[in-house]
Amino acid sequence: MDEIFLIDVRKSILADNENQAEEIRQDLAAKKVFMLNVMASPGAGKTSVIIQTIRRLKDRHRIAVIEGDIESMVDSEKILAEGIPAVQIQTGGACHLDAPMVTAAIDGLALDKLDLVFIENIGNLICPAEFDTGSDLQAMILSVPEGDDKILKYPLMFSICDVLLVNKIDYLQDSDFNIELLRRRALELNPRIQIFEVSCKTGVGFETWCDWLAKRVELKTN
Amino acid sequence: MDEIFLIDVRKSILADNENQAEEIRQDLAAKKVFMLNVMASPGAGKTSVIIQTIRRLKDRHRIAVIEGDIESMVDSEKILAEGIPAVQIQTGGACHLDAPMVTAAIDGLALDKLDLVFIENIGNLICPAEFDTGSDLQAMILSVPEGDDKILKYPLMFSICDVLLVNKIDYLQDSDFNIELLRRRALELNPRIQIFEVSCKTGVGFETWCDWLAKRVELKTN
Repeated sequence: MDEIFLIDVRKSILADNENQAEEIRQDLAAKKVFMLNVMASPGAGKTSVIIQTIRRLKDRHRIAVIEGDIESMVDSEKILAEGIPAVQIQTGGACHLDAPMVTAAIDGLALDKLDLVFIENIGNLICPAEFDTGSDLQAMILSVPEGDDKILKYPLMFSICDVLLVNKIDYLQDSDFNIELLRRRALELNPRIQIFEVSCKTGVGFETWCDWLAKRVELKTN
Repeated sequence: MDEIFLIDVRKSILADNENQAEEIRQDLAAKKVFMLNVMASPGAGKTSVIIQTIRRLKDRHRIAVIEGDIESMVDSEKILAEGIPAVQIQTGGACHLDAPMVTAAIDGLALDKLDLVFIENIGNLICPAEFDTGSDLQAMILSVPEGDDKILKYPLMFSICDVLLVNKIDYLQDSDFNIELLRRRALELNPRIQIFEVSCKTGVGFETWCDWLAKRVELKTN
């Protein structure tokens, strides 16, 4: 009985979220702003990947970041240190960002003066996959130390993402992570997924990823 | 408005969960079975730590494992390969285990013939911290590649755990992970937390951890 009640509430929450995500999408379309939702486990390197991407694209696009965290402000401080505006969402316990939270954050940004907004979602491979944030592109980061079997356990996340960034690729040689197996499993589940191998430590792979992203941003903003 | 509704539902869910967790605790006390709830991010090494612990304790205690996963059975298969009974909970999307799920799993175990039950919770540092499973001990695993700042972002998890296992300690020398800073932050937040440094790859630290755990199990089962 409890179970049925729970599911009804959840469906209604997801429907409300979908409506609000659509409003965000219309607002971003009118203002020609591209939004990228970045999702990953805790510690996979979301903030580091965003910073490495910002450093390579900030002369090309006007960028801002929406930072989601349960409690802290540490990631926003790192973004501000790059000279990029950041809006912090503190969810106070919630394990994902939703469209109402993103709407509130966007209200704190000067969209007319931006081309590209990153959302750094809460560190979680589960619920963020269910909540549309109105973004143009869904990206997930999987770091090599997490293992190549994560796709078996969190298939929804891998199936809704447009981009898979395999981070900490410098760990590959000391690990039993099978990158070819991961690629095959990811493409079987989600044939449209774009896979990039990167390392924030060595910088490898960022040129390819940033060029790819910049082209998508320019298609919308030009 | 939605927000207030959500909170009410959540409170009622948590209260129902607490009641059922208390029933589990009474059942385990009557049958002298010790239960350990293992929580961590995806890929931190929950299954590997449980297997390494089983190998060192299976001649001393009668062990079973409750495996929580959103979809797959891969972890249960690994446990069965160790000659240990496993019950798989597939949550079908839910990002944590709760007491009703654990009750259903326990019904599938011969508690009279067991001393020690591991729960491998869903890979998530957020919601599992809120749901009492009726376990005697809460343990979390943090792996070195995740970084030493996770405590700032997921303080509830660190504050409710009795044990922190710092896994993949073999990565320490190639990383900027500050183990002393982590220890200090963890003990400031949670002065009773027991911290063990381990590596499933090298086996380092498991003797100390397993001796400590075995003593707690024996206090209950003898």
